[in-house]
Amino acid sequence: MKKYLSYFVAGTAIYFGFAGLGYAETTVSAEVQYIFNTLLFLMSGFLVMWMAAGFAMLESGLVTSKSVSAICAKNIGLYSIAGVMFWLVGYNLAYGIPEGGYIGTFTPWSDASSVDTGYSDGSDWFFQMVFCATTMSIVSGTLAERIKIWPFFLFAAILTGIIYPISMGWQWGGGWLSTAGFSDFAGSTLVHGAGGAAALAGAIVLGSRTGRFSSSGGVKAMTPFAASSIPLATLGVFILWMGWFGFNGGSQLAAGTLEDVSSVATIYINTNLAAGGGVITAALISRLIGGKTDVIMMLNGAIAGLVAITAEPLTPSPLAAIFIGAIGGLVMYFSTKLLFKMKIDDVVGAIPAHLVAGVWGTLAVPLTNSDVSFGAQFLGTISVVIFVFIVSYLVFQAIKSTVGLRISKEAEKLGTDKAEVGVIAYGIRD
Amino acid sequence: MKKYLSYFVAGTAIYFGFAGLGYAETTVSAEVQYIFNTLLFLMSGFLVMWMAAGFAMLESGLVTSKSVSAICAKNIGLYSIAGVMFWLVGYNLAYGIPEGGYIGTFTPWSDASSVDTGYSDGSDWFFQMVFCATTMSIVSGTLAERIKIWPFFLFAAILTGIIYPISMGWQWGGGWLSTAGFSDFAGSTLVHGAGGAAALAGAIVLGSRTGRFSSSGGVKAMTPFAASSIPLATLGVFILWMGWFGFNGGSQLAAGTLEDVSSVATIYINTNLAAGGGVITAALISRLIGGKTDVIMMLNGAIAGLVAITAEPLTPSPLAAIFIGAIGGLVMYFSTKLLFKMKIDDVVGAIPAHLVAGVWGTLAVPLTNSDVSFGAQFLGTISVVIFVFIVSYLVFQAIKSTVGLRISKEAEKLGTDKAEVGVIAYGIRD
Amino acid sequence: MKKYLSYFVAGTAIYFGFAGLGYAETTVSAEVQYIFNTLLFLMSGFLVMWMAAGFAMLESGLVTSKSVSAICAKNIGLYSIAGVMFWLVGYNLAYGIPEGGYIGTFTPWSDASSVDTGYSDGSDWFFQMVFCATTMSIVSGTLAERIKIWPFFLFAAILTGIIYPISMGWQWGGGWLSTAGFSDFAGSTLVHGAGGAAALAGAIVLGSRTGRFSSSGGVKAMTPFAASSIPLATLGVFILWMGWFGFNGGSQLAAGTLEDVSSVATIYINTNLAAGGGVITAALISRLIGGKTDVIMMLNGAIAGLVAITAEPLTPSPLAAIFIGAIGGLVMYFSTKLLFKMKIDDVVGAIPAHLVAGVWGTLAVPLTNSDVSFGAQFLGTISVVIFVFIVSYLVFQAIKSTVGLRISKEAEKLGTDKAEVGVIAYGIRD
Repeated sequence: MKKYLSYFVAGTAIYFGFAGLGYAETTVSAEVQYIFNTLLFLMSGFLVMWMAAGFAMLESGLVTSKSVSAICAKNIGLYSIAGVMFWLVGYNLAYGIPEGGYIGTFTPWSDASSVDTGYSDGSDWFFQMVFCATTMSIVSGTLAERIKIWPFFLFAAILTGIIYPISMGWQWGGGWLSTAGFSDFAGSTLVHGAGGAAALAGAIVLGSRTGRFSSSGGVKAMTPFAASSIPLATLGVFILWMGWFGFNGGSQLAAGTLEDVSSVATIYINTNLAAGGGVITAALISRLIGGKTDVIMMLNGAIAGLVAITAEPLTPSPLAAIFIGAIGGLVMYFSTKLLFKMKIDDVVGAIPAHLVAGVWGTLAVPLTNSDVSFGAQFLGTISVVIFVFIVSYLVFQAIKSTVGLRISKEAEKLGTDKAEVGVIAYGIRD
Repeated sequence: MKKYLSYFVAGTAIYFGFAGLGYAETTVSAEVQYIFNTLLFLMSGFLVMWMAAGFAMLESGLVTSKSVSAICAKNIGLYSIAGVMFWLVGYNLAYGIPEGGYIGTFTPWSDASSVDTGYSDGSDWFFQMVFCATTMSIVSGTLAERIKIWPFFLFAAILTGIIYPISMGWQWGGGWLSTAGFSDFAGSTLVHGAGGAAALAGAIVLGSRTGRFSSSGGVKAMTPFAASSIPLATLGVFILWMGWFGFNGGSQLAAGTLEDVSSVATIYINTNLAAGGGVITAALISRLIGGKTDVIMMLNGAIAGLVAITAEPLTPSPLAAIFIGAIGGLVMYFSTKLLFKMKIDDVVGAIPAHLVAGVWGTLAVPLTNSDVSFGAQFLGTISVVIFVFIVSYLVFQAIKSTVGLRISKEAEKLGTDKAEVGVIAYGIRD
Repeated sequence: MKKYLSYFVAGTAIYFGFAGLGYAETTVSAEVQYIFNTLLFLMSGFLVMWMAAGFAMLESGLVTSKSVSAICAKNIGLYSIAGVMFWLVGYNLAYGIPEGGYIGTFTPWSDASSVDTGYSDGSDWFFQMVFCATTMSIVSGTLAERIKIWPFFLFAAILTGIIYPISMGWQWGGGWLSTAGFSDFAGSTLVHGAGGAAALAGAIVLGSRTGRFSSSGGVKAMTPFAASSIPLATLGVFILWMGWFGFNGGSQLAAGTLEDVSSVATIYINTNLAAGGGVITAALISRLIGGKTDVIMMLNGAIAGLVAITAEPLTPSPLAAIFIGAIGGLVMYFSTKLLFKMKIDDVVGAIPAHLVAGVWGTLAVPLTNSDVSFGAQFLGTISVVIFVFIVSYLVFQAIKSTVGLRISKEAEKLGTDKAEVGVIAYGIRD
């Protein structure tokens, strides 16, 4: 989402036409625009950083009570690693890409702020870094309860340093997908599709939790794997929802003109309505099909709605935003069922909520944005998802066959908290 | 709080006198003011959105462990519904009102941003929407553990789409209460009084939880209804406290001049001091009367202090703000006792903290703002509270006599989590 | 961090040279700068206020389940008290100090905003107040499970009203330490060292929890004192991490020029990388020495990294920031072991994470900032830590010998929740 930003901002300072508002030229000076743009990055950045806590709470709430300390360790660890790796190599692998190219350079990021770029380079790095960390946060929930901590951290370093930056650079770094006309405003595919694809690869290589699919199947079989805390999972989704205003709103990349800041407001509205749409359809469908109003489906419905609107949160009308989110909730619901039938063990439902809803959202862009073609969307979605899936699969296999990926049967019976972390998650006594 | 805003902002751009600061005219251009004002709405908006999570945590923490999944489902559901309804009909029911009138129009909101209005229309919609959702969040806690989910959602749609917008429009839409001189800066009555009145109506129609008042009464009888998690309730109050900076600060509606942004700072201070005042008196009174320092009273004391200052967070001195909040804590404490004696079952204490403290705060406005009369405050408070109470009562009765409102005795014994949601809230094992 | 701010801002408005960016003079008008600066204070202020919730969750999670309601009561109470005391006396004790002096005046704060100061005085008060509250939040965790609530509140009033403001004024109020060349950007020593020193004094006066050191020692002995909720503790650390962007970023004190806002961005980056460094070394060392990847050490590693970078978050390179945080994690780890051997009972590890890492961070400033001498850093660190330790020790002793400080043995067996608050923290049943 950043390529050519400096040209854009410079151009904006000279002239822009704000259709319908009778406002021909911006009167905001370059330095004031620079400050507004930087503040947007910083404010949006801390909101997206906060999503790391959201994933930690969502996943803590949805795993069984034997694996909560470990999921906490993994989440705070992966966020730490993401920051280091995205500085060390990730940023320039994405943004050092030649125009229309495939890969950037293996160099650490260094600050190149200038009034001409229109914003602080550091604020942009921070904003992009938290996107990178989000991609990895998506992976951790799916693989919970059975993956070893340090091999997980090794994969986190590779995904946040190399895999995510490469495919993200194809589009936001101005690489070949950008040239091909692909459009992904804030990352339905580049972030959520990528994270979901890596999670799927990991789930296949790891296998399911012991006993997960031993019974005949169906939702009833989930009981021995009861979520440890629904309120923490709910908190996690509210955190994600809040953070998403930064995620999508900040992806406007500028707030220094009337047009830009008004666009950010539109993005807030559509983001919120799509999430609501996802909640409502997930509640309805779970009640109609399953007989109960499944709160876990509602939570993942919110995420699916948010993911679906992320590819294009600016052009839809409010009604279209509700619709895009609502369909997101439906595809999440049915793909959850499908994964269960395929005996792929996604502990928190990240693949349906991020990968499947992300694909839906990306393909839906042409419905509200006539500048975008379905073909380009299809190309971009397929390319990124397949690339991330294959490379992640190979990396997981390589880890498995060297240092090992999965904890022992004994450790699994004990739970990762006792086996790997040595700290019980809930020391609650009356 | 919005009526005539555009005239105000336009006027401000031409001339304003900032008493005491020797600053005669603003030098900020109209477009820069537009950006600052919009950013205030957006930043305040995500803070108030965050209050939805605060209510979810407060209520999850204070209900018994059999009804936590359901309260999570209700909270995320009502927030989703509020967004859709406030777009579909609520906004224009409030702001489409004729000057001095009683009701606006039944039309969906559409963006009418213009540099002349002084802020992005979308950012204002977003800010007003989260206020609407807050009103409904207040209701959910009181009715917990015994109301059916879908009839609750039906009421949520009616309150957020119709009831709240109508009485809110009387004041902030420029309707008859505004003409009558009523003053309610950020909604002690319009939001918190209204939410509390609807909660009271629902509690009366629903009746109390089975066994709640079977023993002789008094606080001891609360034990079988132990709160599921005090730290989650505490988290909820901290979230509300944080969100309230957006709630009250954003209600300044502008941040594009020295005067406005300084006012926002004053509002932050008074909001914080009033909350602290409520905590301190609630702690003292519960210790002096009950013998223990009741943390639940302290939490509701914070809310009561916040609610009390909301009607006028700008004119009080720091000492006056502490006093207003402190009295808020006291009226909350004694009205909690009174409700218990009246055998009205308010699961989380929302009626004392929102309705009673809200009435206190609204009536207290003339103490620090000499432009406001006690008569107008009395008129406004009574009108809004009675209107919302009666209409809510009728709606609850209509739902009760058609689709039904209360779960069965068996379901209540089982708990709403198992009966309605099918998901246990805390799957915690050693 | 505030002294001479008004001169600085005024100077900035006339001329500043922004090295390397080819930008000689700011074009931002004084009023627009005033607005930007005030917004930075407000935004950073609500983020730091949010840290009060972070401490409440961290401490709730790490104490045993018998003392959670009490720790919640203490945290919301101390934050309330801090606001009142810092208004009543604290602010002017710090900022009313004569140049190079030792103590300010005993007068309540009152608003003195002016366009010449460059920011809203109220927004600055709010920002400074939440720093004051943070200092006291650090103390509460260490003393948990055995201190009486009201004597704790008495100490909170003295620390936030008098002790913290005095030593903080020595530096940020322009007192003698400032004259001596001490440098502490956002308070590694002034806030975190001071809080940790007061916690240490309290821990010594109070003594350890009954049974805490009866066994032979070592980490195994911690089992009967199991943390009540690791996910809540993790949430607490994520909240603190998020809040720290306000803590350090807001301490730039200005965002109204290209240079200032770019500096805020740099501070965000370094703050994040240092936290990550602390997490990574704490994870590694606990795995290498203890055999398990201890999530509690990772959480305190994050805090230690954040505390360490706080004395100078602007001048380090990204690599230096990672290094400063990483060493912070190590000194936290080893000082935790040391405290345990010394039989000082720090329930949540606040002394290692705040005091020890704070001293490290303050002494490390000359490594990246050549304007600062090691001697001045040593002088400042020692002076503040010893002053706060001695005065806190005397106050704790005075409270102990008058109203009493520690709960009875019976109360301790019962737990502070039942004995002092009368509310069980987790009413969780299947």
